[in-house]
Amino acid sequence: MSTDLQIVEVGPRDGLQNEPEHVSPHVRAELVRRLAGTGLRRIELGSFVDGRRVPQMAEVETVVAEAAVGQGVTLSALVLNPRGYERLREAPVPEVHLAFCSTETFNQRNQGRSVGQSVEEANALIASAHADGRRVSVTLAASFGCPFEGEVDPGVPVALAHRLEAPDEIIFADTIGVGSPRQVTALLRGAEGLGIPLGLHLHNTRNTGYANAYQALEHGVSVLDASVAGLGGCPFAPGATGNIATEDLLYLLEREGVDTGVDLDAVLEVAAWVTRLLRRDLPGQLGRAGRFP
Amino acid sequence: MSTDLQIVEVGPRDGLQNEPEHVSPHVRAELVRRLAGTGLRRIELGSFVDGRRVPQMAEVETVVAEAAVGQGVTLSALVLNPRGYERLREAPVPEVHLAFCSTETFNQRNQGRSVGQSVEEANALIASAHADGRRVSVTLAASFGCPFEGEVDPGVPVALAHRLEAPDEIIFADTIGVGSPRQVTALLRGAEGLGIPLGLHLHNTRNTGYANAYQALEHGVSVLDASVAGLGGCPFAPGATGNIATEDLLYLLEREGVDTGVDLDAVLEVAAWVTRLLRRDLPGQLGRAGRFP
Repeated sequence: MSTDLQIVEVGPRDGLQNEPEHVSPHVRAELVRRLAGTGLRRIELGSFVDGRRVPQMAEVETVVAEAAVGQGVTLSALVLNPRGYERLREAPVPEVHLAFCSTETFNQRNQGRSVGQSVEEANALIASAHADGRRVSVTLAASFGCPFEGEVDPGVPVALAHRLEAPDEIIFADTIGVGSPRQVTALLRGAEGLGIPLGLHLHNTRNTGYANAYQALEHGVSVLDASVAGLGGCPFAPGATGNIATEDLLYLLEREGVDTGVDLDAVLEVAAWVTRLLRRDLPGQLGRAGRFP
Repeated sequence: MSTDLQIVEVGPRDGLQNEPEHVSPHVRAELVRRLAGTGLRRIELGSFVDGRRVPQMAEVETVVAEAAVGQGVTLSALVLNPRGYERLREAPVPEVHLAFCSTETFNQRNQGRSVGQSVEEANALIASAHADGRRVSVTLAASFGCPFEGEVDPGVPVALAHRLEAPDEIIFADTIGVGSPRQVTALLRGAEGLGIPLGLHLHNTRNTGYANAYQALEHGVSVLDASVAGLGGCPFAPGATGNIATEDLLYLLEREGVDTGVDLDAVLEVAAWVTRLLRRDLPGQLGRAGRFP
């Protein structure tokens, strides 16, 4: 069992980005502050994308300015291209998250370029960020399956991971929530030779998310993304469940004897707060069922 | 990976028993017939309990009479005491399910007797059923946690399993949905010396159900209970999720390369039918998200 597992809270970014509501940057900053108060040590606060195209992420600079978290909490933000990085570089965000898709069709549709071009661009951005003293985590989206190309051989994202130049961390993402434990095993084993922290970004769209998280733990994964209250649906399956919920992941970890240093009751309070904010049920289940014992 | 895994469909019994709606015995029989048409080979069709106390299970004899499944499908029913078995014995039900709780407080409240008395009664019923040519599966409820006594040491249900005389199968039940994979391991390892098929009855109340099912598979479990559409809430946590959903379990198994012989599309059709019947969302997720690839 991993004992130095890091949880990256992605509710303010991947969570809210995939919910229909547009939450103001002030409230998103409050969400980040509340999360930082739970003992979660890594929080992805937003995305430096065009707010006209992705209104859920508009005015991310305001979120950064108002987040004001204490020492010991590392904030990060997603950038998808050099323009995004130029914006991030003006902000006090010490960690950069890059992402592109493992499959050509999905990457063309999402990023408007080939996978090979995305690898080159990522390598340039890693170099820039390192020169600026920033840590870089790269997410390989659709590492388990693609909405356009179907099955993804684990060898494909693993090969992409090897083509990245000096990333600080690689995250394999089950973007559309189709993965199963044997894929987790193949991805983590395939990339372990890189000698850098490996992580997983899991969606529970088909109820395999927590089984995948458990399998990842068994294989010594370093990082798991999770989203408070399970924020973040699936744009490819309306009504479907999104990211694994931070509180449900913490419950699983607690029951398995993994000490994360996070205050689960405090996370449950944030989950209840964000549920009231969005005024509807969210997928996290621990808030409804209650802790045990 | 288990390849001879058996799935016991418990939707018509544990599922409907824990839903607020009272479904007529004719419709419950139709549910059983529809399930039998999917390739599921074991179906728990109901419970021989007092229909005044448990109206969801009233007129179980009618369900039996109208179920009319083909060869190759084994129907079973739950009995909780000798009176229930006397009723079952008049019906063409080849498999008897017995159940009692692993903890004293829960068993006193549910069954009105001590655990020791339940063990004795179960042994007498096993002998009667065997004399009548029936197979007997015994479920040890609250094997993972108890709503009254809290943590349950896996040694407790394992010791009870060893006190049962010649059961054909033991099922450890996570009745309140609190379990985690290491408990699965402890229960299956603890009872493997019995040399009989072992199974698990898992609830997904806190999103650990499928991780537990996966861990059980890894340990060669023989039987997993599941409920179509995830029928069956949790009486101890209103609004909470109940049994693991048959279709979501089948998806996980399919993705792991386990061949169950069940037609997943046909199960999805039954899940859609029962969802229309109850006129609200049910916890099974595959119907909303769709199969992959």
